[in-house]
Amino acid sequence: MQLIDGKKVAHHIREQIKQEVNQRREQGKKTPHLAAILVGNNPASEIYIHYKIKACEEVGFSSSLIRLSAQVSEAQLLEEIAKLNENPQIDGYIVQLPLPSHIAEDKVILSIDPDKDVDGFHPINIGRMVLGQKGFLPATPFGVLKMLEYYEIPTAGKHAVVLGRSHIVGTPMSILLSRKHPQGNASVTLLHSRSQHIEKTLQEADIVVAALGMPEFVRGSMLKKGAVVIDVGTTRVEDASKKSGYALKGDVHFDEAAEKAAFLTPVPGGVGPMTITGLLLNTLEAVKNKDNK
Amino acid sequence: MQLIDGKKVAHHIREQIKQEVNQRREQGKKTPHLAAILVGNNPASEIYIHYKIKACEEVGFSSSLIRLSAQVSEAQLLEEIAKLNENPQIDGYIVQLPLPSHIAEDKVILSIDPDKDVDGFHPINIGRMVLGQKGFLPATPFGVLKMLEYYEIPTAGKHAVVLGRSHIVGTPMSILLSRKHPQGNASVTLLHSRSQHIEKTLQEADIVVAALGMPEFVRGSMLKKGAVVIDVGTTRVEDASKKSGYALKGDVHFDEAAEKAAFLTPVPGGVGPMTITGLLLNTLEAVKNKDNK
Repeated sequence: MQLIDGKKVAHHIREQIKQEVNQRREQGKKTPHLAAILVGNNPASEIYIHYKIKACEEVGFSSSLIRLSAQVSEAQLLEEIAKLNENPQIDGYIVQLPLPSHIAEDKVILSIDPDKDVDGFHPINIGRMVLGQKGFLPATPFGVLKMLEYYEIPTAGKHAVVLGRSHIVGTPMSILLSRKHPQGNASVTLLHSRSQHIEKTLQEADIVVAALGMPEFVRGSMLKKGAVVIDVGTTRVEDASKKSGYALKGDVHFDEAAEKAAFLTPVPGGVGPMTITGLLLNTLEAVKNKDNK
Repeated sequence: MQLIDGKKVAHHIREQIKQEVNQRREQGKKTPHLAAILVGNNPASEIYIHYKIKACEEVGFSSSLIRLSAQVSEAQLLEEIAKLNENPQIDGYIVQLPLPSHIAEDKVILSIDPDKDVDGFHPINIGRMVLGQKGFLPATPFGVLKMLEYYEIPTAGKHAVVLGRSHIVGTPMSILLSRKHPQGNASVTLLHSRSQHIEKTLQEADIVVAALGMPEFVRGSMLKKGAVVIDVGTTRVEDASKKSGYALKGDVHFDEAAEKAAFLTPVPGGVGPMTITGLLLNTLEAVKNKDNK
């Protein structure tokens, strides 16, 4: 079994990004600038934002964090977004989800300038992805494609099964794997909470992408010998042996899967580092799109 | 085997639309108005446009046809589109495809006001479909959902296999069948020209949607007993016994499939009439969206 080392791939790509940012600087071109809006102080969101800003520093991007109180009105948030849309210094930005329940997420996402939507969540970017047009891909599926590329894992004609139909992982992943591109051309089955025969379908899969958020749902017995297994799940489970009191568990039972899989991502250290890498790649793309304008 | 009678379903829905248009008239509300732009005179396009205009008359919609020469420049076409976007009389419009090769289709579709894009081809409408947001669905997959609804064919938890990944049929069909709605919640596999094991995968399908454009590709031996078979293919094949010299053939071998299927659409008279019905439904929706503004 070959471990898919997300940290290594992320490091490799981030080094490339860093070099490109340095070159840009030497050529007098603009330094990419990623902004983030954080509403309230959800602890998980604080951690994600911290890592995103750290990653920007690592590759030489500028970054800004706009903190808004959990009581901010939708109108005030939309005003902040309008400012970012208009600000030529900001190449791309994200609004960290989830938002407080009094704010309509759909409306917020729709107000983001699609050319700065480096999370790839705006419907027009989702539509472009479906149509194979240039746009920003959602960061996690984008990161998974980059892992498949790095390890030269063939996908064309393979049977890929995606577990979970979330808007930000499972659904775009299933679409991307079926499109016409080097990490696509797979026969893709999308399974979810309403699916029957999940075990049988998984047993026939050459490639499994698990994005359910159900710890160790995928057991070794559900996998075909030689499958490629990408574990997107990361759920905190209590673990008294850890200093923090919890451990991160993927959707795949790692030890069992390791006996069957040809390629397998660990949790943590698999897909996780690739998600932020996808965001960095999108931000670099955003500034390059502006160069040409 | 139960024949899925597209003509009957289309007639039923069009009667409902007609009644709603009459009610609107009595209430002093606007009559829905569909416009179409036809570039050049591709014979198949002429026929499609003819049927679309006829269907508008049938349900009491107003319609306009804008004919442009095959030599029209892209800029001129975009000007015509801008006029339709601005014209408050026009509730929805379509640009009949294909366009001459000197015109960029993507650019044309992107210039259509998404609120008037009753073909559902604009990336933002595709994105909304993926995200389960309100928008216009592409007419053919929309028509297929309406057939499933009419015949009360359950889809939740079923294994649906879609053959063909075109932007206007196969891909949106595969997405729609997996979404959370009464004709969705299926486990969906999307197969295409690069897929392996097509026969084996089809044999496991509870629902088959064939949209390849390859006459009689799906044989009886490829189907599970009791499958629901929706044939979107319509290819002209030579047939000396017909006055016209040709016959329309679906992607499914009808006689063989009839031995295995629980439900089956004929060609012609199956999905065909439902496509224009989908377009009419979108146009009615477009005018109703304006009522509320």
